[in-house]
Amino acid sequence: MFSFNIKHQEANCEARTGVIKTSHGEIKTPAFIPVATKATVKALTPQQLEEIGFQAILSNTYHLYLQPGEETIEKLGGLQKISGWHKPMFTDSGGFQVMSLNGKLCKIDDEGVDFRSCINCSKHRFTPEKSMQVQRKLGADLIFAFDQCLEIEADYETTKKSLARTHAWEERSLVEFKKLNKDKKQALYGIVQGGRFKDLREESAKFISSLDFDAIGIGSIFGDPKEESIALVKQAMQFLTKEKTKHLLGIGAVEDIFNYVELGIDTFDCVLPTRLARSGYIFYGTESGGTEKNRFRYKLTHAKFKDDKEPLEQGCGCYVCKNFTRGYLHHLFKAKELLFYTLITYHNLYFFKTLMDQIRESIEKNEFLQLKEKWLQN
Amino acid sequence: MFSFNIKHQEANCEARTGVIKTSHGEIKTPAFIPVATKATVKALTPQQLEEIGFQAILSNTYHLYLQPGEETIEKLGGLQKISGWHKPMFTDSGGFQVMSLNGKLCKIDDEGVDFRSCINCSKHRFTPEKSMQVQRKLGADLIFAFDQCLEIEADYETTKKSLARTHAWEERSLVEFKKLNKDKKQALYGIVQGGRFKDLREESAKFISSLDFDAIGIGSIFGDPKEESIALVKQAMQFLTKEKTKHLLGIGAVEDIFNYVELGIDTFDCVLPTRLARSGYIFYGTESGGTEKNRFRYKLTHAKFKDDKEPLEQGCGCYVCKNFTRGYLHHLFKAKELLFYTLITYHNLYFFKTLMDQIRESIEKNEFLQLKEKWLQN
Repeated sequence: MFSFNIKHQEANCEARTGVIKTSHGEIKTPAFIPVATKATVKALTPQQLEEIGFQAILSNTYHLYLQPGEETIEKLGGLQKISGWHKPMFTDSGGFQVMSLNGKLCKIDDEGVDFRSCINCSKHRFTPEKSMQVQRKLGADLIFAFDQCLEIEADYETTKKSLARTHAWEERSLVEFKKLNKDKKQALYGIVQGGRFKDLREESAKFISSLDFDAIGIGSIFGDPKEESIALVKQAMQFLTKEKTKHLLGIGAVEDIFNYVELGIDTFDCVLPTRLARSGYIFYGTESGGTEKNRFRYKLTHAKFKDDKEPLEQGCGCYVCKNFTRGYLHHLFKAKELLFYTLITYHNLYFFKTLMDQIRESIEKNEFLQLKEKWLQN
Repeated sequence: MFSFNIKHQEANCEARTGVIKTSHGEIKTPAFIPVATKATVKALTPQQLEEIGFQAILSNTYHLYLQPGEETIEKLGGLQKISGWHKPMFTDSGGFQVMSLNGKLCKIDDEGVDFRSCINCSKHRFTPEKSMQVQRKLGADLIFAFDQCLEIEADYETTKKSLARTHAWEERSLVEFKKLNKDKKQALYGIVQGGRFKDLREESAKFISSLDFDAIGIGSIFGDPKEESIALVKQAMQFLTKEKTKHLLGIGAVEDIFNYVELGIDTFDCVLPTRLARSGYIFYGTESGGTEKNRFRYKLTHAKFKDDKEPLEQGCGCYVCKNFTRGYLHHLFKAKELLFYTLITYHNLYFFKTLMDQIRESIEKNEFLQLKEKWLQN
């Protein structure tokens, strides 16, 4: 079961609110989707994620295929059953990790890709068909076609050649998906590629739009350089069916979210709030301090926070800010306590959840651009 | 503020139920007190501890003195304020850790003990007065006199000599405590020592009973050999004021709890459920399988649990058993996911909390010995 309905189109830009429906419930968009690589958002219980207010999470097919394996997950009842997360769930196709984690060690041919396990170096092969079969067994509601991801430096010729292969893989993904999905349990996202080249992005957007995907993802947008990334997404968006929901893969810095919601992106997944939490970075929004690189976040590990009685963020309503001081959390970091990872992850995800609430509200009032201006002005 | 009232004396043994009152609330006894060494029960939020139903936790003075330091904790508002745990709290005196973690490196004289930090090797000195001052700044409700802990092998002469010193230190602790505690915020436990020698245990029990401590701890009971340990506690208990509450330091195996509740012990602290959780040991009570050493627990890390759809313990009502399978938790262990530590710790502590509920209930019905028989029969 799958549907997407646009609820409100912003009057002054392409931003819109909407609702994705799956058999595990709804996702109000625009939404941020926390990453649960190995069927857990690191350091948080599903109970805590629900308490924060998240609507969906995204797991990584590559990691789960290797450990514990899709057969084990299927036997145990599928991703939602085992993870204790009973709301909507995404899996990616494995394409990005196969290539980014294996680098030059993976061998790509037109049929598929050979790679080695990052756990024990054992040999494996993924094809579009295999990715669909694995994702079927994992059992997420929302899954992605198998695509080829390139490095950011890829030149025009390489990208053009890769795009033809990606499109062929996506068509094969769709054929295999339709075979497996007769019960309509899952929905499939096609992925727009095309690297750093506007004409290839256009070509890809047109091609993906022409196929019978339930929804559309945009891949290989690195976020930087910002202007170039925005231009590439903008170019693709022009040629994509408005009615279909769009997911921007792997993107989630605060500014990026504003920039891409403005262009009509509905959902984002990113490890930023969770991964940075574990290094001690705290997201905050009341001031826009920090360096250009570290906007909207500060590092709690600095000794100046040792005796600090303030919460992580003034005015934040999360469990962590209501109960703990920076001084205590700094102590947990220095003492390498497991609770540190839990509490900082909790706060950072609460920050993103609240940000998306604000964004949805502003769109409904046709005030999205004012909200963006308020956040990004400094 | 402190009081202890016996609620019900078991008709068939020394077990009793009671209530310890502190300014942060009550502890119904017999009770198991989870250890929060560095002001956190490893991997759990205070919210989760309350959800499980714990009434009190115990932090370690030695660790908190070294990191972040009692001054910092005092500035931040004291242990309960910083840890988000608003119920009763204990701190130990630091004596046990100073000696066990420093081994032969610590130098003891009649005044106090020199030791080195386990974090950066810096030099420090604890005296009874210092321990009281540090524990005052930490601010727990229930604190312990500074004592000398010996190795299990200590001979009669060494133990006798050490006992005289311990008694002098405890008297000094009491004098210092009375100076600092004019507001009656804290309560002080004296500690019975005396090693493996019944006559010294008797001497110590009589001495500690003769002093104006609010409550009494029994230290240096190693639990093994079992018969000897039980005989030593039994010997001491005969000479201790019935009306005062008794804490058995560092003890908490299931059989030990039954054996010592039977003798009239009211509270226990032990790292067993939390430390073993992090190595993958699961406490369970419905069967009493396992080896003699590992009764009431099994190791989840065994490959046979990979596809296991059962909860950690059949019939357990905890969040973990209601939501997750052994197979998933085994996966979290193999993947070294932080959530593993949280969930297993949660279950193990729930097991101990439920065990203590059963024990209290059985005492009130004068059926404690039947409950003990049921648990320990095999």
